Amino acid sequence: MQIVVQKYGGSSLATWEKMENVAKRIIKAKEAGNKVVVVLSARGDFTEELLSMAHTANPHGSKRERDALVSIGEQMSVTLMALTLQKMGCFAKSLNATQAGIMSTADFSTARIKRIKTQKIENELNKGNVVLVTGFQGVTAEGDVTTLGRGGSDTTAVALAAALQASVCEIYTDVEGVYSADPRIVPNAKKLPEITYLEMLELSALGAKVLQKRSVGLAKKYGVKLMVLSSLSEASGTLIKEEDKVENIFVSGVVSNKDIARVSISGIVDAPGVWFKVFSIMKKKDISIDFVEQRKMGDGTKDISFTIDLDRLEDTKDILQKNINQLSFEEMSHETNLAKLSVVSTGVATNPGVPSLMFEALFDAGINIDSISTSEIKISVLVDVEDMEKATKALHDRFLEENFIR
Amino acid sequence: MQIVVQKYGGSSLATWEKMENVAKRIIKAKEAGNKVVVVLSARGDFTEELLSMAHTANPHGSKRERDALVSIGEQMSVTLMALTLQKMGCFAKSLNATQAGIMSTADFSTARIKRIKTQKIENELNKGNVVLVTGFQGVTAEGDVTTLGRGGSDTTAVALAAALQASVCEIYTDVEGVYSADPRIVPNAKKLPEITYLEMLELSALGAKVLQKRSVGLAKKYGVKLMVLSSLSEASGTLIKEEDKVENIFVSGVVSNKDIARVSISGIVDAPGVWFKVFSIMKKKDISIDFVEQRKMGDGTKDISFTIDLDRLEDTKDILQKNINQLSFEEMSHETNLAKLSVVSTGVATNPGVPSLMFEALFDAGINIDSISTSEIKISVLVDVEDMEKATKALHDRFLEENFIR
Repeated sequence: MQIVVQKYGGSSLATWEKMENVAKRIIKAKEAGNKVVVVLSARGDFTEELLSMAHTANPHGSKRERDALVSIGEQMSVTLMALTLQKMGCFAKSLNATQAGIMSTADFSTARIKRIKTQKIENELNKGNVVLVTGFQGVTAEGDVTTLGRGGSDTTAVALAAALQASVCEIYTDVEGVYSADPRIVPNAKKLPEITYLEMLELSALGAKVLQKRSVGLAKKYGVKLMVLSSLSEASGTLIKEEDKVENIFVSGVVSNKDIARVSISGIVDAPGVWFKVFSIMKKKDISIDFVEQRKMGDGTKDISFTIDLDRLEDTKDILQKNINQLSFEEMSHETNLAKLSVVSTGVATNPGVPSLMFEALFDAGINIDSISTSEIKISVLVDVEDMEKATKALHDRFLEENFIR
Repeated sequence: MQIVVQKYGGSSLATWEKMENVAKRIIKAKEAGNKVVVVLSARGDFTEELLSMAHTANPHGSKRERDALVSIGEQMSVTLMALTLQKMGCFAKSLNATQAGIMSTADFSTARIKRIKTQKIENELNKGNVVLVTGFQGVTAEGDVTTLGRGGSDTTAVALAAALQASVCEIYTDVEGVYSADPRIVPNAKKLPEITYLEMLELSALGAKVLQKRSVGLAKKYGVKLMVLSSLSEASGTLIKEEDKVENIFVSGVVSNKDIARVSISGIVDAPGVWFKVFSIMKKKDISIDFVEQRKMGDGTKDISFTIDLDRLEDTKDILQKNINQLSFEEMSHETNLAKLSVVSTGVATNPGVPSLMFEALFDAGINIDSISTSEIKISVLVDVEDMEKATKALHDRFLEENFIR
């Protein structure tokens, strides 16, 4: 009997009606002859409510307590879903992270799953139960409850699918799959029937909200077959899988992201190892940086800048300030009026057509490019946030016209 | 360093202001040089809200899931209180039942504490933390979360005080202590400075809401010094302790309780062992019975009746119906229009003045007595629920006049 892992996000659980729809989907998977493990997020905006309560109680309280508080959101989801499934005649049992054996690091609020003791889950599956597991959380060796950070429920689902050797990990969301661009910005964006792990990794890293980067990386590492599907329709979704061996010139997506900030540091003493220090300081806090630039000044100092996710801005300023002696800089500033626009394609490295078409389209649309950053499978540019939507449409239209989008 | 266990109920935690007041009290106990363990209930009506959600999801769902859902109420309290204490500069750590090692039976919704693995609590106390423990819940050997049933947080507090050999267990509530009668019914009811375990046990068993019966029994068993105090005032409260060796003719309280039902069973075959069967059937479900009565009928059958707590009525009907073959009865009915009125006094057995004064007072007030039940330290009568308040006042007034109340 195959194991299927399904994950449902908070918006799919927000009302009793939605809960029952999800329950029907779960039962369908079970009746198709699978053992079913379901990972749930907190319902609706409950996580935000809990975070706001924690903030009211104490804006600077320990993350351990905040994590323990926030974890009750998923606990509510899994127990209510177990009750709902039981009402529909389906055997079901809820497990929190401690019970499910989801062992994590002790990095409260950004913990990482270390391993999963699957014994209890397997026992319950063998008894014929649908097993409902709290997403987004883990437990340390000392028994403290942790949360995994943004999009953590996706990571829980993929990690469970890997540990249980599930046949597929289905991520249910409020869109029908992965699109060639954000359909809210580009109305004729196309749903992709399939995409490689690497492309999805880039799309997520660049700001596509549909799947969390870490979960895609994990799926790639363990070869977990990942499906992104809508919890509201019967549409076929997007399959994320190992890259094809054949050469691929297609563009898998145009991603725009305005939730970024550029941090600039001026007056750094121009000695070797500056970037090494910056990268390792940021790495410690698990903050990814992009668009790294530097300018040497006449006085033996240099100015540097890089972009980060907007929600890591406070952390970034904190950690840089704390390391001011090690870095010996004069001033720090930041901008939030930029947007990152990216084209993801495994053909970037081998096919010069993709970058040239991209810059031509942006030029034709009159978009000013601030900076450029490239990798094996993507090109990103920084543009003024005011230009973001216009630029996204222009790019997507051009790639569609030229048959670069499947 | 002495250990103090404090317990705060849901109404003491209902608002942020109340939370901060409780935090101040906790800090005061710590600054007085104690190690402090605090047991909290769910805030305000949160437990009722969660139960109602469980009922909406599935009125007949598994108790395991309902317990796991309901347990998040106390988890919210302890984490928010930890954050509040931290804000006030006090080191604090929350522990749920699993973390605190509160091992219980697997009787979901009515579990009993089997033992407490105090290691983790003691470690945290030794690190200088106030330790906040979720009341009302336990964990089974298999790691399932249970709830302890009504008033369970009192039981948690007393069990912790016993296991940690605390110097005192302070139960904070919204009244200033134990009264000679319910002050809402009898305005001149007196606060008792002290009372014996046995008397308190009877008062609780008879319906006094201030302390849960099981917690008093546990305190008696382990000699835990118990204080009932107000979370709103600095008044001195009531001390519950071992009985004095001296003879005591005082009345410790007049208790009225309308949350009872009388169950009647008719047409039972009049063979030996009927009551034994009834008692053991009820015992299995942990349902206490009182006012047992029987009437032999001419046809070789008998009718029996007894009273139970109103909230066990459905369970009682269920279990009797399930055992209809074993008991071989014809019909079952129930009444809910009765109230139980009790006088608790260690002098009942030795001083005939107490019962005679009681019946005289009720006669003078024109109260009709339905049935009588006595024990070593209490006399109870059943009266019409309409007469309850009038009868309570009449009794309390008379005992006060005659100096039977301290």
